[in-house]
Amino acid sequence: MNGAGVTMDGGITFPQGFRSSGVACGIKRSFRPDLALVVTDTEAAAAGVFTTNRIRAAPVVLTEDRLARTGGKTRGVLVVSGVANALTGPEGRKDSELLLDAAERSLGVPAGSLYHAATGVIGPRIPVDLVTKHIPEAVGFLEPGRNAARRSASAIMTTDTVAKEAAVVLRRANGTKFRVGGMAKGSGMIAPALGPPHATTLGFLSTDCPATPEGLQKILSEEADRTFNMVCVDGDTSTNDTLLVFANGRAGGAPADEDPALRAGIGQVLEQLARAVARDGEGATKMLTVKVSGAADTGGARLAARAIARSVLVKTALFGSDPNVGRIACALGYSGAGFELDELRVDLEDGNRRWPLIQEGHPVPGLDNGAGKRLHTILQRMDEVVLRVELGQGPAGATAWGCDLSYGYVQINAQYRT
Amino acid sequence: MNGAGVTMDGGITFPQGFRSSGVACGIKRSFRPDLALVVTDTEAAAAGVFTTNRIRAAPVVLTEDRLARTGGKTRGVLVVSGVANALTGPEGRKDSELLLDAAERSLGVPAGSLYHAATGVIGPRIPVDLVTKHIPEAVGFLEPGRNAARRSASAIMTTDTVAKEAAVVLRRANGTKFRVGGMAKGSGMIAPALGPPHATTLGFLSTDCPATPEGLQKILSEEADRTFNMVCVDGDTSTNDTLLVFANGRAGGAPADEDPALRAGIGQVLEQLARAVARDGEGATKMLTVKVSGAADTGGARLAARAIARSVLVKTALFGSDPNVGRIACALGYSGAGFELDELRVDLEDGNRRWPLIQEGHPVPGLDNGAGKRLHTILQRMDEVVLRVELGQGPAGATAWGCDLSYGYVQINAQYRT
Repeated sequence: MNGAGVTMDGGITFPQGFRSSGVACGIKRSFRPDLALVVTDTEAAAAGVFTTNRIRAAPVVLTEDRLARTGGKTRGVLVVSGVANALTGPEGRKDSELLLDAAERSLGVPAGSLYHAATGVIGPRIPVDLVTKHIPEAVGFLEPGRNAARRSASAIMTTDTVAKEAAVVLRRANGTKFRVGGMAKGSGMIAPALGPPHATTLGFLSTDCPATPEGLQKILSEEADRTFNMVCVDGDTSTNDTLLVFANGRAGGAPADEDPALRAGIGQVLEQLARAVARDGEGATKMLTVKVSGAADTGGARLAARAIARSVLVKTALFGSDPNVGRIACALGYSGAGFELDELRVDLEDGNRRWPLIQEGHPVPGLDNGAGKRLHTILQRMDEVVLRVELGQGPAGATAWGCDLSYGYVQINAQYRT
Repeated sequence: MNGAGVTMDGGITFPQGFRSSGVACGIKRSFRPDLALVVTDTEAAAAGVFTTNRIRAAPVVLTEDRLARTGGKTRGVLVVSGVANALTGPEGRKDSELLLDAAERSLGVPAGSLYHAATGVIGPRIPVDLVTKHIPEAVGFLEPGRNAARRSASAIMTTDTVAKEAAVVLRRANGTKFRVGGMAKGSGMIAPALGPPHATTLGFLSTDCPATPEGLQKILSEEADRTFNMVCVDGDTSTNDTLLVFANGRAGGAPADEDPALRAGIGQVLEQLARAVARDGEGATKMLTVKVSGAADTGGARLAARAIARSVLVKTALFGSDPNVGRIACALGYSGAGFELDELRVDLEDGNRRWPLIQEGHPVPGLDNGAGKRLHTILQRMDEVVLRVELGQGPAGATAWGCDLSYGYVQINAQYRT
């Protein structure tokens, strides 16, 4: 990555001019926070990518519409968790509009300048009265700083077990410093969606670097393909996936559309959030990173990495710490990616060491007994498993992130009324 | 189905002129039968469909090659279970050839006239000496009749819990009776493969109806798309999938290539075997049948049915008897199938009753409380869950078969060295 930024402890409010809050309306039966608000004190350029699911939740339709109508200008985003507002028809769209109207009035920002996202159960309507009643509270609690960022990151969680935040500081070519922050939620109904523009899970990024909406959109679409779209928890592409980035320009200077530092900053925050989503997959006991090299092109590398990270059989083998190379090869075989079987190489990365699993297209000897037992023991103590897959065809590579499939995943998803 | 056949108790030896056997070589540590042999007493026309996985096991490559070289003429098939002979390079191919040579010599049939399939662990070589030693036994035990069919169906099992067999008797347009029999194995690494010709799991069909290899191939390819390719256990397309049909013509008469009765018989046996594979999916506690109607074309109907039957979130909800309509709609949304959301209807079929889940694109009221609890209770007592999905677009339909995803599935697949 060009001009990698310095990772900081922070989230969505890390860049200048952003404030956020998270409050509990009572949508979630647990009475955990379920309404997050993020605002930029001055109008920001905005870009977004959205689910490719044919059933699009009302907040997705509404936000995409507002992004187009405003020409990519916004004052912030209102996020509801606990109910997806999907499969709710025109009434659901109206519900979301009522919420945004109330929030815009309470904030004193122009009508149509707020965006919207939601996550949770598909089917039920949003309890509009309940949420509207708490909007003044969400506005009143808006603050810059670390705690406010954490509160909003917590308020967008569903089955997530930890809040997911990232922050970096970088320097532009001209020497100006700028910041990028972000928050995301993940956990379930997570899979790469095919065909740009697309996104997975909810993610929100803020930066004080100046950019045009067009420049921002190009960077977001490309970096989302490399990061959020390479996360595989369960293979189900949600109706609500939304990824938004806001650039309010408070760091000063001319638009950084072509400055590699802006791309690096957005890419780095997206990658940190993507990894956090994979690590916190529903029921996950181990994170899986699949690094593919030697592909003919990036598209092929991504197909290969995603197929391995998505395979239910690879995931269950990982849960059992089983070095089951056949399942890795099988997933690669049906991925659609090209490779030279005679040059196929798969290694397990263990800190600075690499344990070969497949060499020149053949499983290494002894996987059925001695070598297999040793790898089993190594896998048992790993929290993050890194597989390196060399396809032997060309110069392109890609990385995908996933996790294992455990008894916990089945428990979380089999409970009546999740 | 035109002229549906009468279902009988029988398997691969049900048609005239077929004999089979199943013996234990000791490839499986359990010492269960692991070598099956099926022969036709006179040369039969043959057709086959094979995995679309880019990594193709040696038996797949070899059989496809022999099918082409013989112009679709065979004397039978030798099936090994416990080891896939995949990822074994040219040595693996040689191993398979040695086994077929030995079997052909022992049977006294022409070189090149036997086909081959294997299923089991990917990576290890076949223990050729061990298997060769038991080939005379497999030949010696060849018999017609019910018990021999069951022995061969048992010998091809891996994690299957029951042998899968089917048999029907039909009458041709000219009045001649003929028979179709078959056996299959399934259980895991099961998913529809895209792009014909393709197949899933192992399946073998026999008929005494006469047909040309070309006519047989056409029927098999089309009926496999409708049946075996609509089974979804885990979404992983294996390296070894093979589906073969042999027609020895012993019932007499001219080739029945265009006789709807032959297509009906083959289709009926394939469908029975496909259902048996879905019902016996690894760890399955409930079978799932998804019947889609109202699609613009068959391709769209199949996409929709498969996506729902394959969704990990639908499968876990089913395990928990959760009437989670959002997950069904979500899977439909990313399936790639077209539908009219305003006319979308999903019903749960319960014997002669139908319980609506989604009407005119909206979940039925009360799924969060009263109606949901009632459906939960209904689902709890069902072994086979049938979902009817009406897309509201056109005249085409399709059916997919799957099963739930249980703790048992994770246990089976997470055990070190499966």
